[in-house]
Amino acid sequence: MQIAFLFYEGMTALDAIGPHEILCRLPNAKVLRVARKSGAIRTDSAGLELTAEYSLTDVSHADVLVIPGAGSATTLRDYPEVLAWVRSIHAGAQWTTSVCTGSLILGAAGLLSGLRATSHWAVMDRLRAWGAEPVSERIVESGKIITAAGVSAGIDMALTLAAKIAGPQVAKALQLGIEYDPEPPFDAGSPEKADPKIRDALLARMEASFENVN
Amino acid sequence: MQIAFLFYEGMTALDAIGPHEILCRLPNAKVLRVARKSGAIRTDSAGLELTAEYSLTDVSHADVLVIPGAGSATTLRDYPEVLAWVRSIHAGAQWTTSVCTGSLILGAAGLLSGLRATSHWAVMDRLRAWGAEPVSERIVESGKIITAAGVSAGIDMALTLAAKIAGPQVAKALQLGIEYDPEPPFDAGSPEKADPKIRDALLARMEASFENVN
Repeated sequence: MQIAFLFYEGMTALDAIGPHEILCRLPNAKVLRVARKSGAIRTDSAGLELTAEYSLTDVSHADVLVIPGAGSATTLRDYPEVLAWVRSIHAGAQWTTSVCTGSLILGAAGLLSGLRATSHWAVMDRLRAWGAEPVSERIVESGKIITAAGVSAGIDMALTLAAKIAGPQVAKALQLGIEYDPEPPFDAGSPEKADPKIRDALLARMEASFENVN
Repeated sequence: MQIAFLFYEGMTALDAIGPHEILCRLPNAKVLRVARKSGAIRTDSAGLELTAEYSLTDVSHADVLVIPGAGSATTLRDYPEVLAWVRSIHAGAQWTTSVCTGSLILGAAGLLSGLRATSHWAVMDRLRAWGAEPVSERIVESGKIITAAGVSAGIDMALTLAAKIAGPQVAKALQLGIEYDPEPPFDAGSPEKADPKIRDALLARMEASFENVN
């Protein structure tokens, strides 16, 4: 079971590391961390660097593909070879997944046309530019494509996917292993539950980051 | 506001990256990723490498210290200079925190004697070896030391800490930014809620990893 994570400059670290912590512990999993060019990848999480061991050209197949998101859109469409790779891996994959604005990369690769999908709440409507139907749910399944909402939703997505791949008992053991019994200190983690002032300020900032780019 | 993350070989990636994603976005935060020697640090998360930009000797002060845990104990007491550094940073810090088995490092550094503390549920009792009183709660505050339960509890801990440092409005904005409105697919993330068979198997594996080491 080959599980490829697409790493890229400007990605959000937790988008990748949440699912990575779970999926890398699936029985017989081989994780491939892949970037346009292998080496240290600088995230938008205060410049934290993660290493990608593989370049795109090193990896021609994966059973599972995970695409993390980013706090701004600048990285999404600069590299047509990345989108071509995503399409090619998707063609042979059992599951193609995204976290947060990673769904916009799937969209840019042409994989969401006509499909229900989700993303970070603040950029959800941008999915329409790629022909997708935005859905405000934490995890959205459309055939073999699973999209997750913002950042932390990747953890819920990965546990759901773990159950599909290895059964609920394995997924529950992984959940217990990371002691995932969340107790958020505030009930403020979705746009519906948030203080409108906080929500609008964050929305304005995200919209500025993604201005003129899908 | 200097926030130091102690990175070390064999640490669990999500233990660090959960809190990192939140605390690095605090207003005026400067994050310092620190290891015994700077450079790429290999985690126990399928060998994922994270970069530590600083060596211990580069960093003599931090306002907040975060110590992640690890899936085995081998790294905890091999390096007395690490424990000395932890003690020294703690002395000048506003908050000293741990995630998962990171509390055993605080214990080994002599900082938990007589204090209530938590850890990953499967190694909780090992806190006694360091004179601490194990407490089965997700987040335990003892003066300026905050310990969190296993892996994912670091996210709840960091949001709680963010509210202390910058106020609840900022913490709520950070929570909304990572869309932290968890929907775990199973209600199985704590030892009390887990299937006893799953729990006992994981406990046996963790105990073997930590055998003869505190």
